[in-house]
Order: sequence, then structure tokens, then C-alpha cells
Amino acid sequence: MVKINVLEKFSLFTEYWSPKIVGELNSQYVKLAKLKGEFVWHKHVHEDELFMVIKGSLTIEFRDKTMIINENEFIIVPQGTEHKPIAEEEVWVLLFEPKGTINTGDTISVFTKEKLEEL
Amino acid sequence: MVKINVLEKFSLFTEYWSPKIVGELNSQYVKLAKLKGEFVWHKHVHEDELFMVIKGSLTIEFRDKTMIINENEFIIVPQGTEHKPIAEEEVWVLLFEPKGTINTGDTISVFTKEKLEEL
Repeated sequence: MVKINVLEKFSLFTEYWSPKIVGELNSQYVKLAKLKGEFVWHKHVHEDELFMVIKGSLTIEFRDKTMIINENEFIIVPQGTEHKPIAEEEVWVLLFEPKGTINTGDTISVFTKEKLEEL
Repeated sequence: MVKINVLEKFSLFTEYWSPKIVGELNSQYVKLAKLKGEFVWHKHVHEDELFMVIKGSLTIEFRDKTMIINENEFIIVPQGTEHKPIAEEEVWVLLFEPKGTINTGDTISVFTKEKLEEL
């Protein structure tokens, strides 16, 4: 059992759109990711996904609206909901989702990461 | 779908040791709690439990060691692990755990909250 310092973990990587695993519990992963630019439209068929913003402002486009998530805020995107994250400036997020979740959901693209690094 | 501002939610209650539900995903709850003083020794037989400290310093006693979790840090207490949270000064924590988790685990006491409020 170790304690995890979130900011320290963020200092260990620089790549964008490449979630790192920093914790596991109840068949879920806690992940950290740095985001910049536009991601792809996708949905997770079976998984709800939590985005908590640690630094910056994250825009998430949905088919019917756009939401902006700021520091100290989180949003839960329900399974089956199409979304497209956009980070105009660099954003740091904490993700909480089931272990099997693929970052691009049902949209295989150059952003797809099949195997995630553990930090 | 709504975004949740964690600090705003903390401003809505003052009770200690009374977790509030602020999110639900994949049969897990996101909860917020204010802690002060000593809690009871307990374990969760089937649930891993994540404590992320939002404000203050949380001490958790285990049978073989003591850990101090500070702001921007989290710890995952594995199922079956006896623990006793202690907050010398007020601490704000975010919890992730399965929906059925009882705050005092297998130790029914005056701290036990069977029904949690949703904020």
C-alpha cells in the first residue's frame, strides 16, 4: 500500500492523450492524462467515465451541447454518450473508469492506446 | 449530465464523518466527507476504498503502520485491511468506493451511516 502524489506523478511524463495508470480498485483504474488539442469523437459502450480536472480547463463537446470543466470540477460521461474532449491549452485530468476501458472507445484511431503504462 | 464543483459541494455541509454522495458511475459512488477527530477501527470485507485528500492532512492507522495523506495525495485501502482514520485538524476527503460500502465497514458504531445524503 503506497500513497500517490498526483502532482508528482504528473511530473513524470509529458505526452498528450496517453493515460497513465496510477491506481487500481474494485476492477477500476485511476488514470492521469495530459491533454492538448482536439481528440476524436467516441463513446464507451459499456463504461461510464469520470474526468476530474486537476489543471486547466477542459472542453467536452457532446452532440447536443458543449461543457467546460475547470479545476476542482468533475463530470461523469455516461456509457454510450458520444463525446469529444478538446484542450485549447494544456489540461491535466484524473480519470476513473473500469479496467477494460479503451481511451478512444469505439473509435479506433491514431490516438488509440491499447496498452497503458503504469506509473 | 452535470459538472460537479468539489469545493462548492464541500460548502454545503458541515457535519463530520457523514459522507455525501456527489457522483455515481459503474456501480461506484464518488463521495465527499469532512473529518475531524478519531474514527473507529474497521475494515471493508469486499470493497477497496480510495481516500483522496482535498484539504488538510489525514492520518490513517493500520495495524502495522501509520500513514499521513496530504493534499493532492490519495491512498487505496485494499478490501479486508483494518484501518482507522484520524484527523487532528479538519480534513476534506473525496472517496471512491462501490455503492454498497458502509462507512464503518464491519464495525457498527455511533459513526455508522446506513443512508447517505446526495448533494
